[in-house]
Amino acid sequence: MKEILEKVNEFFASEQFIHTPEELYAPIEYTLRLGGKRIRPFLLLAANQMFGGTTEQVRDAAIGIEVFHNFTLLHDDLMDKSPIRRGQPTVYRKWDENTAILSGDTMFALAWRYFLAQPHPRLREILSCFNQTAIEVCEGQQYDMNFEKQSQVPLDDYMMMIRLKTAVLLAGALKIGALYANAPQADTDHLYQFGIHLGLAFQLQDDLLDSFGNTAEFGKQTGQDIRDNKKTYLILQALQLAPDNCRQELTHLFSSTPADSDEKVARVLQIYNTLGIRQEVEKAISLQFDQALLHLNAIKTEEKNKAPLRELMESLSDRKK
Amino acid sequence: MKEILEKVNEFFASEQFIHTPEELYAPIEYTLRLGGKRIRPFLLLAANQMFGGTTEQVRDAAIGIEVFHNFTLLHDDLMDKSPIRRGQPTVYRKWDENTAILSGDTMFALAWRYFLAQPHPRLREILSCFNQTAIEVCEGQQYDMNFEKQSQVPLDDYMMMIRLKTAVLLAGALKIGALYANAPQADTDHLYQFGIHLGLAFQLQDDLLDSFGNTAEFGKQTGQDIRDNKKTYLILQALQLAPDNCRQELTHLFSSTPADSDEKVARVLQIYNTLGIRQEVEKAISLQFDQALLHLNAIKTEEKNKAPLRELMESLSDRKK
Repeated sequence: MKEILEKVNEFFASEQFIHTPEELYAPIEYTLRLGGKRIRPFLLLAANQMFGGTTEQVRDAAIGIEVFHNFTLLHDDLMDKSPIRRGQPTVYRKWDENTAILSGDTMFALAWRYFLAQPHPRLREILSCFNQTAIEVCEGQQYDMNFEKQSQVPLDDYMMMIRLKTAVLLAGALKIGALYANAPQADTDHLYQFGIHLGLAFQLQDDLLDSFGNTAEFGKQTGQDIRDNKKTYLILQALQLAPDNCRQELTHLFSSTPADSDEKVARVLQIYNTLGIRQEVEKAISLQFDQALLHLNAIKTEEKNKAPLRELMESLSDRKK
Repeated sequence: MKEILEKVNEFFASEQFIHTPEELYAPIEYTLRLGGKRIRPFLLLAANQMFGGTTEQVRDAAIGIEVFHNFTLLHDDLMDKSPIRRGQPTVYRKWDENTAILSGDTMFALAWRYFLAQPHPRLREILSCFNQTAIEVCEGQQYDMNFEKQSQVPLDDYMMMIRLKTAVLLAGALKIGALYANAPQADTDHLYQFGIHLGLAFQLQDDLLDSFGNTAEFGKQTGQDIRDNKKTYLILQALQLAPDNCRQELTHLFSSTPADSDEKVARVLQIYNTLGIRQEVEKAISLQFDQALLHLNAIKTEEKNKAPLRELMESLSDRKK
């Protein structure tokens, strides 16, 4: 896993993102230099290596998938009016809204340039997978915005939303990496499903850690989603399990923004504990990891080729932030 | 020309743009149903027919290039805060800014879906041409926004900007149409250059008609660019030709927004007339049409195959709105 991540970091270190006009490309360079876990290019390379692909073959695609991901973050931050990303001001705050719109559009086009840089016998299949993913990510963001305005959101709808907004891009990265190495369809399908379940587990973990993460250890305030009245798996599950009077209180709490938000967070967590929400979410996460594992096991390749993805799964299932 | 435009209109009439979630796709359908001249799909089809291509082969690409064009209009209208497009409210006004951002992003992805719908031996070349065009259109929009903040803009810079923002997409549409019909490179190059000069002529005409169009005949107010202090070929040319005191007056006029803008327009037009700006711009337009014609003439195909593009050029050079 370390080896692959080092390669990914080399790709980015050796790539030039500044072009003319600078007003357009400086925010792109800024965004791509902020770092991040680079999990999507990692998945693309790991899947490629699994079927004997060469790193050079997927260098551009690996950069392309990360450029696309960062484009979605850039526009999402603008739409959500998020001031901070990776500890730094977001593009629309550091520059302005128009810069965020146009630099984002350009990043989407640049992602395509990377995908088009290398010829490949299955290029149309690869590009169609990338494009289908891109469309679904947009649909996921729309559902997310819709849900903020809806009074009730069924858990199934929430799972569909995070599948589109988060999971399909992890799944797409894996499938694309495997397609470059000309993997058989049964295996690219398993990899895709592995990515879907991994992505769902990852997002549910994010939801859980926001309310139950160890704040002292990571210096992050617990309960930001609660303060923001954000619809997550936790509150949607709680609303399903709560008896009438408790559900009414939760609904009331999640439509208020009191000056003392600590008190609100404490009360919501108290209700979560009464309802056993933490255990419910942990169960849901385990379920997704189990499903992911089934698909990883079903892939027909030597066990040693699966090591990086197994290692990733283990590090994710242990993560505390 | 009429025959090709009818085909283009058939394509759009028979295409379904509404999908789920409706909040995402309704603005896309709205934008694409507003109409427009459909000049880019026309060019794509005309270039394809010129080299014996079949209409069915380029149906999807023709839709794709128009979807892309409308995506750029959607985001440009948001960035420029334009309230009206084709006589109707723009998407960000009819819905909101976030809808305009995300529906626009989705349109860009949908354009790719159309381009990927059909296999083609030269697909990578076709897609690379489309993508290079997309990147340049973004760069053109950035230069346009930069110029609004610059006190001085050389005419050459202005020509570069309109080449990127407007001309390359017309050129790209032509080249893509020809690539689908497997035209030789010398001819696709000539078609591309034909499109560049046609696009430059078209934009300079827009600039000219805004100040010197026949208002009574077309019900449009003359001088909107002057009222908006917009940098166009006319004012940039005037600033170059004007003697010192006159240049100072123009600079002053173009940094003011008086309550009585009619008086301002009248004074600017008076200066334009003194300097012979109308004749200068007409000369520049003729020059571009002449260059376009040279490239059209140089294409090695039967004369009858060039008829639709000649007809287009004639209708454009006569246009009054």
